Amino acid sequence: MDKIVVTGFRWAPPFAQGLVRDLRVRWALEEAGLSYAVSLIDIGDLNSNAYRQKQPFGLVPAFEADGRGLFESGAIVHRIAAESEALMPADRQGSAETVTWMFAALNTVEPPLLHLLAIDLRHSEEEWAKLRRPSALDAVKVRLGALAAWLDGRDYLLGRFTAADILMTTVLRFIRHTDLVAEFPALDAYVKRCEARPAFQKVLRDQMADYALNAPVAA
Amino acid sequence: MDKIVVTGFRWAPPFAQGLVRDLRVRWALEEAGLSYAVSLIDIGDLNSNAYRQKQPFGLVPAFEADGRGLFESGAIVHRIAAESEALMPADRQGSAETVTWMFAALNTVEPPLLHLLAIDLRHSEEEWAKLRRPSALDAVKVRLGALAAWLDGRDYLLGRFTAADILMTTVLRFIRHTDLVAEFPALDAYVKRCEARPAFQKVLRDQMADYALNAPVAA
Repeated sequence: MDKIVVTGFRWAPPFAQGLVRDLRVRWALEEAGLSYAVSLIDIGDLNSNAYRQKQPFGLVPAFEADGRGLFESGAIVHRIAAESEALMPADRQGSAETVTWMFAALNTVEPPLLHLLAIDLRHSEEEWAKLRRPSALDAVKVRLGALAAWLDGRDYLLGRFTAADILMTTVLRFIRHTDLVAEFPALDAYVKRCEARPAFQKVLRDQMADYALNAPVAA
Repeated sequence: MDKIVVTGFRWAPPFAQGLVRDLRVRWALEEAGLSYAVSLIDIGDLNSNAYRQKQPFGLVPAFEADGRGLFESGAIVHRIAAESEALMPADRQGSAETVTWMFAALNTVEPPLLHLLAIDLRHSEEEWAKLRRPSALDAVKVRLGALAAWLDGRDYLLGRFTAADILMTTVLRFIRHTDLVAEFPALDAYVKRCEARPAFQKVLRDQMADYALNAPVAA
């Protein structure tokens, strides 16, 4: 894979900094040892015709390699993982188990966590959010409990680090504004273990450095 | 792939009939021409230790082939697609584009649709759901509009039928209790085109036949 370009935001508001999904893609590229460029856009660019050509839903990230485009962070991370045994075993069952946990992260664990994020950080003053929060919190705990049971005695989802850990860790970061992960010792240790990886630390620093450089100047 | 077993429900309540996710897996198996057995469980079995060994989150479906287990409908459909060019092109870019639209279906389109389903069919009497519905509906329309724009002039997501169409069609079925899909002619034609496939018709009949056979007897 050559001429890799990842699209991210020039700047994001503080509540979203460190959560934007190009982070997943950059992390996977670092773990795979692939070099890449980052293309920064403004949030207002998401609806331009030019960007919709790359990403039909107007979301970040978009991705290009060898002159061909892709989107969806899960799919991009999978594409990168297909290039590197550091992210996914090459045998059919090993790769299928990695894909299993990639979908588990994005389709089973993420939705209730993002629902709680939206309630707490975007709609907290709205009546529906106040009424909904207790049951939304319960739904998060159900998923975290099942995940913690799985991770008990395991360092990573599949016994070794894979692309699925990149997705699961970045999903669990969606509730960093709460103490929920810390309530489950196996989850807490898992997130810390994954976040301590040099590749994660580097891409987080890179993303933050761009945001700092491009922060709006106070009027 | 041999000795394939898909786990589904012996019976599901009417609002969920035709929406349970083993349907996606059965559909993929039929399109791929693979033979399989179906293992039916009761909803109450989801929390048993035996089932949690197969599916750590206690959800349907679980899957077994060649004596090895997998879960997550997206991952299982991907595993089947890896066996069959009827579901996914074998070249790297073609398979990556299929995976892109698989994740788009489950991570970008599904969450707002399932949120609306929950509001309308599970929480409709709750105050938060009444207050939330207008903005939840707007969020659905944003995704449907982007998807309809993509499908304009295309018969399938990628110009030919793939595993991504199986996931997208079954996701769009989550709002079958509304007229929302019909509001977008390109989407309406797309869903009808996919649902008309003999493989879909067969697996829907099969799933309904089991539910009819195992329906609880009125007291």
